[in-house]
Amino acid sequence: MVRGMARALVLGGGMVGSAMAADLAADPAFEVTVADVRPDSLERLAASIDVQTIPADLSEPKTVSRLAADHDVVLGALASRLGLNTLRAVIEAGKPYADISFMAEDPLQLSELARERGVTAVVDCGVAPGMSNMTAGHAASRLDPCERIEIYVGGLPIVRRWPFQYKAPFAPADVLEEYTRPARVVEHGTVVVKEALSEVELLDFPGVGTLEAFNTDGLRSLVHTLDVPHMLEKTMRYPGHAEIMRVLRHVGFFSTEPVDVGGRPVVPLEVTSALLFPKWAFDDREEDVTVMRVTAVGKERGRRTRLVWDLLDRYDPGTNTRSMSRTTGFPCTIMARLLVQKRFDRPGVHPPEVVGREPGLLEHFLDELRRRGVHYDMRVEHPPEA
Amino acid sequence: MVRGMARALVLGGGMVGSAMAADLAADPAFEVTVADVRPDSLERLAASIDVQTIPADLSEPKTVSRLAADHDVVLGALASRLGLNTLRAVIEAGKPYADISFMAEDPLQLSELARERGVTAVVDCGVAPGMSNMTAGHAASRLDPCERIEIYVGGLPIVRRWPFQYKAPFAPADVLEEYTRPARVVEHGTVVVKEALSEVELLDFPGVGTLEAFNTDGLRSLVHTLDVPHMLEKTMRYPGHAEIMRVLRHVGFFSTEPVDVGGRPVVPLEVTSALLFPKWAFDDREEDVTVMRVTAVGKERGRRTRLVWDLLDRYDPGTNTRSMSRTTGFPCTIMARLLVQKRFDRPGVHPPEVVGREPGLLEHFLDELRRRGVHYDMRVEHPPEA
Repeated sequence: MVRGMARALVLGGGMVGSAMAADLAADPAFEVTVADVRPDSLERLAASIDVQTIPADLSEPKTVSRLAADHDVVLGALASRLGLNTLRAVIEAGKPYADISFMAEDPLQLSELARERGVTAVVDCGVAPGMSNMTAGHAASRLDPCERIEIYVGGLPIVRRWPFQYKAPFAPADVLEEYTRPARVVEHGTVVVKEALSEVELLDFPGVGTLEAFNTDGLRSLVHTLDVPHMLEKTMRYPGHAEIMRVLRHVGFFSTEPVDVGGRPVVPLEVTSALLFPKWAFDDREEDVTVMRVTAVGKERGRRTRLVWDLLDRYDPGTNTRSMSRTTGFPCTIMARLLVQKRFDRPGVHPPEVVGREPGLLEHFLDELRRRGVHYDMRVEHPPEA
Repeated sequence: MVRGMARALVLGGGMVGSAMAADLAADPAFEVTVADVRPDSLERLAASIDVQTIPADLSEPKTVSRLAADHDVVLGALASRLGLNTLRAVIEAGKPYADISFMAEDPLQLSELARERGVTAVVDCGVAPGMSNMTAGHAASRLDPCERIEIYVGGLPIVRRWPFQYKAPFAPADVLEEYTRPARVVEHGTVVVKEALSEVELLDFPGVGTLEAFNTDGLRSLVHTLDVPHMLEKTMRYPGHAEIMRVLRHVGFFSTEPVDVGGRPVVPLEVTSALLFPKWAFDDREEDVTVMRVTAVGKERGRRTRLVWDLLDRYDPGTNTRSMSRTTGFPCTIMARLLVQKRFDRPGVHPPEVVGREPGLLEHFLDELRRRGVHYDMRVEHPPEA
């Protein structure tokens, strides 16, 4: 479709949007525009990379549609609450869309609309959701049967400080949302709902040490798109974090139900956010690490097989880009290129497992990520028959 | 002074005030009146014991003075914030006063006024402060020199539930105040200020198990009244409690500085109180335990000596009286009798260590407490020379 330069629009100039914009701006095939409501974020971006910037209130769908209409491909890196309306606005503008906005709603509800408009949109296209879905989708189509998929993922600061040993590499409100929303897992082919932060277990990761892993609602679309009888996703933190979060949740500090304080209703979560989020902010140039392990067990050509993808990625001091921004943003820019090149152009709203099932596409993502310093180590094991 | 029945006024009909009133009402020497702002508390009291009740707003000092004027002795069991003004009002009414209201301010500032009016007031007259001061004062005068006094005390529920393993046997706001106010200890004759909840250590108590103990500002008047070079008071909880409290304090949940929530100032402590205090309320007839150990080390007649007082007291199912109410209320009623009998009638505001130094008075308290089922086990040890 596009000859010469493709015009890419990045919605959101935050940490991840900036990493996306920088990746595309370094590519002579792209001309990049970043839209954001915060002029200071845009100024900072324009000072360091070759992009155009547009100050715009992206909570207004008409604004999104109008901006999208001027571009060949759109990338979404917005707050989760803007995700669904923005997806709809881009579809209505008739433009291909790669998104990491991690909306709470089910984006596939707009798939029919996308098919009508002949638009291809790939959502949840970061690291997890994102590469986790892509590897899971690949494994589910490669193993026959695929019996079990387990995803363990965490984004962490390198320096551990009492009491949380944690900084939020994406919107901290979305982190607390992860700690409260019931977690869906699949057991014996049935969707089972578990409490978030439950079933804490300890795992060792070379180079990182012992981490704790607990249930969070991370499977998302995989619950419905893959026919695998056992699936779970767990979030990883340094040991001790989950217990503190469980206590705060127990007391009611994450509650959105107002309590009476001197005759006035106050939402506890808002007070907690005001107190907690500054403590969860990364310092300038503070290093982070992203750890992920996706394991799939089943049979390949009749032989019991375990496929394992391990990711261990760190802050890039050269570009001052956090690992979470790299590992989340690059899958989205790689996807955006595939959309522009029409290497994936099936109309509809698709989760990444659909992309991962296409022959050669997972390998393409892993190659492109490796070129950007994000290394997935993949291994094939043959455990004894169960 | 008083022949026949003495008229006693109990200020406050809460848990401890009720235990005081019941103790005095069972004594033919007393005619008891309880004043409280809560009519329901008074009704409950009047239904179960032989007392008169007066609904009254005791935050008004004139009301306190007027009520006190009609009585022979006054007992205080009020919220800490009412402590100082009430003390002044009782002194101005010219009546002897035994108080456990645990005010934050220094009550000894009113000692001059009490001397002018010829009034004897004993404050902090519960278990700790209270019996802890009395035993400490006794030890400091008995040992020569007295080198070290250590007070460990805690009031706990019998049933331990995640995450706090705690219920508040007195005003929960005063518990949080204990967790934030810097703790004064005495080391090498110097007052040293330590962070509350610091220096957590584990101790075993027969019949209770392992408890944690941490610094709180419990020495109060002892810091100034005793010439003992090493003194500390630590609060005890089931292990794990302090760490949670440290985390909540660290995040700012105990802060009285307003934070901005949607453009409105909100005091975090008020939100925390609204969420936490209902979880810290004892259930009806729920059992509690009071644990205290006071240790004094020094020389007696030239021989190295350790004096130890151990208290282990439990909920009384017969009268449905919590241990904390018994162990706090009874020292105060015993003191009130001494005031009426003029066995202690030195004008001024006195902390209990002054009473404990008087020959025979500590023994009198321990005997009277034992008659009420509150047993202090006292032992004298002779450790090897250091």
